[in-house]
Amino acid sequence: MRRPTIMDIAKAAGVSKGAVSYALNGRPGVSEQTRGRILAIAHDLGWAPSSPARALSPGGRVGAIGLVVDRPAHSLGLEPFFMQLVSGIETELASSGVDLLLQVTEDMGAEIAAYRRWSAERRVDGVVMVDLRVDDPRVRVVEELPLPAVLLGGPEGADPLPCLYTDDAGAMREVVHYLAALGHRRIVHVAGPEEFVHTRARVGAFLDAAEQAGLGEARSVYADYTGEAGTKTTRRLLATQDRPTALVYDNDLMAVAGLGVAHEMGVDVPSQLSIVAWDDSVLCRLVRPSLTAIARDVVSYGRMAALMLGATIKGGPVEKREVSRGELYPRASTGPLGA
Amino acid sequence: MRRPTIMDIAKAAGVSKGAVSYALNGRPGVSEQTRGRILAIAHDLGWAPSSPARALSPGGRVGAIGLVVDRPAHSLGLEPFFMQLVSGIETELASSGVDLLLQVTEDMGAEIAAYRRWSAERRVDGVVMVDLRVDDPRVRVVEELPLPAVLLGGPEGADPLPCLYTDDAGAMREVVHYLAALGHRRIVHVAGPEEFVHTRARVGAFLDAAEQAGLGEARSVYADYTGEAGTKTTRRLLATQDRPTALVYDNDLMAVAGLGVAHEMGVDVPSQLSIVAWDDSVLCRLVRPSLTAIARDVVSYGRMAALMLGATIKGGPVEKREVSRGELYPRASTGPLGA
Repeated sequence: MRRPTIMDIAKAAGVSKGAVSYALNGRPGVSEQTRGRILAIAHDLGWAPSSPARALSPGGRVGAIGLVVDRPAHSLGLEPFFMQLVSGIETELASSGVDLLLQVTEDMGAEIAAYRRWSAERRVDGVVMVDLRVDDPRVRVVEELPLPAVLLGGPEGADPLPCLYTDDAGAMREVVHYLAALGHRRIVHVAGPEEFVHTRARVGAFLDAAEQAGLGEARSVYADYTGEAGTKTTRRLLATQDRPTALVYDNDLMAVAGLGVAHEMGVDVPSQLSIVAWDDSVLCRLVRPSLTAIARDVVSYGRMAALMLGATIKGGPVEKREVSRGELYPRASTGPLGA
Repeated sequence: MRRPTIMDIAKAAGVSKGAVSYALNGRPGVSEQTRGRILAIAHDLGWAPSSPARALSPGGRVGAIGLVVDRPAHSLGLEPFFMQLVSGIETELASSGVDLLLQVTEDMGAEIAAYRRWSAERRVDGVVMVDLRVDDPRVRVVEELPLPAVLLGGPEGADPLPCLYTDDAGAMREVVHYLAALGHRRIVHVAGPEEFVHTRARVGAFLDAAEQAGLGEARSVYADYTGEAGTKTTRRLLATQDRPTALVYDNDLMAVAGLGVAHEMGVDVPSQLSIVAWDDSVLCRLVRPSLTAIARDVVSYGRMAALMLGATIKGGPVEKREVSRGELYPRASTGPLGA
């Protein structure tokens, strides 16, 4: 399974190395008949153009795309979202022999530096970007480089990049109406970082839906997706005099942490407190009581992102596509008070 | 921040494009003085040789390494181990501008195909391999390609590859002696897949240490690291007449699943059942009761692997290095019976 050399092909075809080189590189110097014979032999021997050689050819592509995940490593390890996204992206890349470069950074400066280096060194043909922020500086950077990119998020703030987005507001309204129907009046939303576009969408929908449902005391508090933040925020909320009777968390990790705090403080779930997690995962099903969650098909989200990026790299039109929103899966962590 | 072209450099230096090309490629055709001036200007303009061009130069490296993770995507998302490993590898790569290619596969055949393709297409300079198996076919594949590789695991079965390993047997003995000291007589080890070298090491040490401690009923059962396996295995074990009073799990995910089953079956942890997880993570600290765990510094394990692979790619000697073993962190999930 050693990679055949030009010499191997030349020997097998009974021609010079130069003729093989002309044939493989599509240059004049050999007859069409000889070229065809050489290409057939090269194919039989398992020859493939090396990635560096292919990338140097005019209009050549590197055959790789990049993904930067900008989260602290210790929290990242636990968020199933990213590995499911990677898995979905790779499902789509596998058939085309395109590779994925993954980088884990701790701030946006490092993320932008990665895009600049990948572009300057021709490491990737394009990137998938996650966690769209309000006035996101990355949008301008990749546009100016230029580096083909697809955003997961938007559509607000994504221009002029193509993007894939879900109706987070609609899913949040469904959660609020469900909790109100169970009789909850004091509900709190433990949100992700304030600078994320999807956090804003969820917070806005949460407050609107709560007002519509006549829940005067609903509010959102910001946290950073880590278990630590989930623990501290929940402890503070449950220690207030009129403690909330329902909590909606923006990720599964904070919800599991919140469940732990409820247990530690002797607050029974769900008879005294209902808990809803955003993004379902094995985690939500493993803990007791199992967590009611909003489930999205993250793997297929990753597949669609890879497909859209492929089209973008080939110069296709800029698309803004909505993918199906998360669905509410009620489990044991939600119910009417006192039940 | 657009990447400067040869033309930009030629203009700034007041020379021809040809002269710039000679200078940058280290070829004759320009005086040493001119070459120096051109290189200085190129550097000031932010010029960097493109990765494809560099890889094609004699002895050139691609500047990328590969990691294939061979686990079902839905379970992978939850195992903090891999993202922490990736994070550690990247800490070491960041300073040198080397990239990481990540691939998630569902079986070893696909993993081996990835190594062959990466080698044939010159995608990576080397790979880090995890989950060493008994009579592992990957060892021969990378040796024959050849593709520089470092194994996490061993040292048995790693020859002739360099490897990094931990004393899993020693850590397991510590766990067994700790549980015996707490008074447990019926303990079961819920192990990882039987074909992994480190599973064998743990099972062997578990049975030896149990015999030494006079625990007649100790045994290991194999599972596959998923939450589902943790759930089913625990349910079966707790349904037996003389159910175990302590369970040692080979990963955190199965341990959390086991805790959920104990709760579901009304078995109190730790007064009726003690639980120990291998590999500590936020997960172990978030659930209630928090899980006693064996903690390794996975991030630094990743860093060391990247360093060792770098040395291997440069043709350094084949090393077999032991890294510090996991330490036992007792938390709320273990204690004497009835306490």
